[in-house]
Amino acid sequence: MTTPWAQRYALRTHNMGSSAIRELLKLTQQPDLISFAGGLPAPELFPIEEMKAACDVVLSEAGAQALQYSTTEGYAPLREMLVRHMARYGIKVELDNIVITSGSQQALDLIGKMLINAGDTILTETPSYLGALQAFTAYQAQYVTVPIDDDGLQVAQLEAALRTGPKFMYILPNFQNPAGVTLSLTRRYDLIALAEEYGIPIVEDDPYGQLRFEGEHLKPLVVLDSEYEGCTGAGGYTGNVIYTSTFSKTLAPGLRLGWIVAPKDVVSKIVQMKQGTDLQTSTFDQMVAYEVAHGGFLDQHVRRIREVYRGRRDLMLKTMEESFPAGVSWTRPQGGLFLWVTTPESINTVDLLKDAIQQKVAFVPGHSFHPTGGGHNTMRLNFSNATEEQIVEGIRRLSVAIKQRLAQHAPVFSVN
Amino acid sequence: MTTPWAQRYALRTHNMGSSAIRELLKLTQQPDLISFAGGLPAPELFPIEEMKAACDVVLSEAGAQALQYSTTEGYAPLREMLVRHMARYGIKVELDNIVITSGSQQALDLIGKMLINAGDTILTETPSYLGALQAFTAYQAQYVTVPIDDDGLQVAQLEAALRTGPKFMYILPNFQNPAGVTLSLTRRYDLIALAEEYGIPIVEDDPYGQLRFEGEHLKPLVVLDSEYEGCTGAGGYTGNVIYTSTFSKTLAPGLRLGWIVAPKDVVSKIVQMKQGTDLQTSTFDQMVAYEVAHGGFLDQHVRRIREVYRGRRDLMLKTMEESFPAGVSWTRPQGGLFLWVTTPESINTVDLLKDAIQQKVAFVPGHSFHPTGGGHNTMRLNFSNATEEQIVEGIRRLSVAIKQRLAQHAPVFSVN
Repeated sequence: MTTPWAQRYALRTHNMGSSAIRELLKLTQQPDLISFAGGLPAPELFPIEEMKAACDVVLSEAGAQALQYSTTEGYAPLREMLVRHMARYGIKVELDNIVITSGSQQALDLIGKMLINAGDTILTETPSYLGALQAFTAYQAQYVTVPIDDDGLQVAQLEAALRTGPKFMYILPNFQNPAGVTLSLTRRYDLIALAEEYGIPIVEDDPYGQLRFEGEHLKPLVVLDSEYEGCTGAGGYTGNVIYTSTFSKTLAPGLRLGWIVAPKDVVSKIVQMKQGTDLQTSTFDQMVAYEVAHGGFLDQHVRRIREVYRGRRDLMLKTMEESFPAGVSWTRPQGGLFLWVTTPESINTVDLLKDAIQQKVAFVPGHSFHPTGGGHNTMRLNFSNATEEQIVEGIRRLSVAIKQRLAQHAPVFSVN
Repeated sequence: MTTPWAQRYALRTHNMGSSAIRELLKLTQQPDLISFAGGLPAPELFPIEEMKAACDVVLSEAGAQALQYSTTEGYAPLREMLVRHMARYGIKVELDNIVITSGSQQALDLIGKMLINAGDTILTETPSYLGALQAFTAYQAQYVTVPIDDDGLQVAQLEAALRTGPKFMYILPNFQNPAGVTLSLTRRYDLIALAEEYGIPIVEDDPYGQLRFEGEHLKPLVVLDSEYEGCTGAGGYTGNVIYTSTFSKTLAPGLRLGWIVAPKDVVSKIVQMKQGTDLQTSTFDQMVAYEVAHGGFLDQHVRRIREVYRGRRDLMLKTMEESFPAGVSWTRPQGGLFLWVTTPESINTVDLLKDAIQQKVAFVPGHSFHPTGGGHNTMRLNFSNATEEQIVEGIRRLSVAIKQRLAQHAPVFSVN
C-alpha cells in the first residue's frame, strides 16, 4: 500500500535498491543458523563490567552534564584522548582536527554530504565497503573502480582511473572490508605520489587498523601524505587525506562512536553538516566511552580481541583448507574481521547462498560489494563473531553447499 | 588556511552560513552570563538515579545485546512502548509505523533526505525551528512561509502559499519553537482540510506536546488527518501526516533519542536512508531509555517537569510585566520551553544582543528563525533552563539593555 508520500520521494532515493546487508542481518537471527554474514564483533569480549563501572562514575560525578546537550564537535576529553592515541600511530593532529561521529558510518555520510554533487564520480576499490557505497549513493555518486589483489588496491591500474577526474578516492588500506587484504607499503607510497600528481584527495577508512594479528604496522595514508607534504606536527596538517576510524571494533558497536580526522577548515564544514544532521553524538555514550577507554584499559582490551580473532581466523583457514574443494581460493588476512572466498566461475554466490541457508550457514555474496559490477563468484566470510565450534561446523556446511553446486555444473561424459 | 578539499565542497554546503545556534551555545558557557538563548532542559530534573539503576539492569541482564549492533528500525520494546504511549494521545499506529532516530533532529534530516530535491519548496511557519531549516537547507530547499499569531499558523493565509505547490508543510502545532504559540483546534481542522484539498502532505514536529502546563490537550494533526481519512486503527494509517517527537524534553537530550511515525511504506524508505546515514541509533541508549521510561516512571517525571517549567514561565512573565518598557510585547505559552518577544521596530535584536551580552544576559535574535526574512525586532527567550533567581535577574538585565536602546532612538525635541 502506498501513500501520498510515495510520489514525492527525492531523486536520491531512487538508486538505493534493497539492502543486502539489511536483509542478511535478518537471516542471522534464526537460532540454528551459523552466520558468517554479519560484521559483528565477538559479544563475549565486550567489557561489560568496565561499562557498568564507567556508567556509575559518569552519572555520579557528572550526571547532569552527561544527560544534557553538548557541542557538535564531541566531548573534548574523548577527542584529546584520540589526539594522544593516534600520535602513537604517527598521526600527529590537534583537537580541532577531530570530530566525533555517530559511528564511522556517519563519518562516511557526512563526507558524502559535504563533497558529493549528483553525478560526481568517486574512485573506490572493487570490492569495497557496502556501507560506504550506500552512504555515497544517497548523494547520487557514480563510481570508477580499481581492482584489488592480495596486496590491496592495484596501484598500477590507478592512473587510468584518476584520469577520469574523480572527486576523491575512498580507500580501506588495512584488512579491507570485504576482502581482508592490506595495501602494501610500496603501494601506499605510490598511491600518495599519484594522489598528489593528479590532485585527487583521499578518504582513508581505517576501522580495523588496530586489529593486526601479525606483521608490522604500516603507516596510514594520512601519515604518508603529511610526510610527503612536509607539514608534520604543529599547526595541524593541511593535507590531501581525510582519515576516519571507530570504537565499534575495539570497544562496542552498540555505542555508535566513530571519528573523523581532517584539516581544520574541513572539520569546521563537517561540524556544520553534522549540526543539521543530528546536532551531536550521544553525550552519555561519549563520556562513558572515555571513562572506559582512557588510562590504558583499551590497549589491554584490544590485545585480548586480537588474540581471540587471530585464533578464529586460523581455525577458519585451517577448516577451509581441510574441507573446501579444489578450485576455491581465499585471502589470508593479517587482521580485521573478514576473509574473501572466490569460487569457480560456474558458481553464482547468490544462488549458493540459497543452498547455504538450507545447510544452515550464511555469508554475504560478493557481487553487492562491486560498485561497477562483477564478483558473482565471490563471498565475504566473517570470522570474529562465531565461536570455534561454529566456525568448524559452519565451514563444513558451506563446503557441502559448494560441492553440491559444483557437482551440478560438472561436465557429464556420455559413454554410449 | 584552506586545503585541497575546500574547492571540492558540494553545492548543498554553500547556503549554510554560520550557525546562530552554534555560536550562541558558545556564549552560554561564560559562567557569569545568564542565558535564555539555548533550548536546554533543566539539568537538575534529569533522572540521574533512575539512569544509574537502568544502566545496571541493562548491562547485567543483557550487556552483550546492549553493546552490539542492532536493527536500523530501533529497539522493539522501545517502539512497542511508544505504540502504547501514543495511543493515549489518540495516535493509533503499529510497530512498523515507528522508527527510532538519533534525536528528532535526525528525523528532520532523514525526512529532508528522503523528500527534498534541490530547489523544492517547503512551506513553513515564520518564524520556525532553526534546526529544521538547517536540515532542509542542506538538501537545497527553498521556502514559502505563512506567518503565525497567538493561535499559531495563520491558516487564513495558507491557501495562497499552498498554490505555489510546496513539497510538504512543516508545522510545529504545540508551544512552537521559537514563538511558544499553539495552533488552535479550529485552525487544525482547517489546516487538515486544506492539506487534503491541495494534496500537500504535512510533517508535524511535536517535541513539546507533553509539556502542557494548563488548558486541554489538542488533537495532533496526525490524528485529525486519520479521522478525516476515515482510516483509524487496524492496518496502520496511510495518511498525509508524518509525525515526529523526542525523548529530549521528557527524559534527557544527551541520549539523542527521537522517533518518526509514518505510513509503513514511508518508514521502510526512512529505514533505508538511516542505514546509509548511521546504521542505527545507539543500542545502549535505547535500552537504557526503555528501562527508565517504561512502567510509568516517565509520566510521573513529566508531571514534575511541567510543574517546574510552569513556575519558571510564570516568573518570567511576571518579571517582564514589571520591568519591560512600554512598546514591548510577548507571547504567553501554555507549555514548552520558549516565549517570544517583539520590541519596537526601531530595535534590531542582533544589535540588542551585543548590548545584552554587555549586561551579561543572552537570547536568540529572531531574524534567523525567519526563512524568508523579517523578524528583526524579535527574540526568543528560553524559560526552562535558568533558575528562579537567574530568571528575575536576567530579565532585569535584558530590560536595561532594551531601555538603553530605546533611549538612543527616542525623538529629541529641540527647545531653542
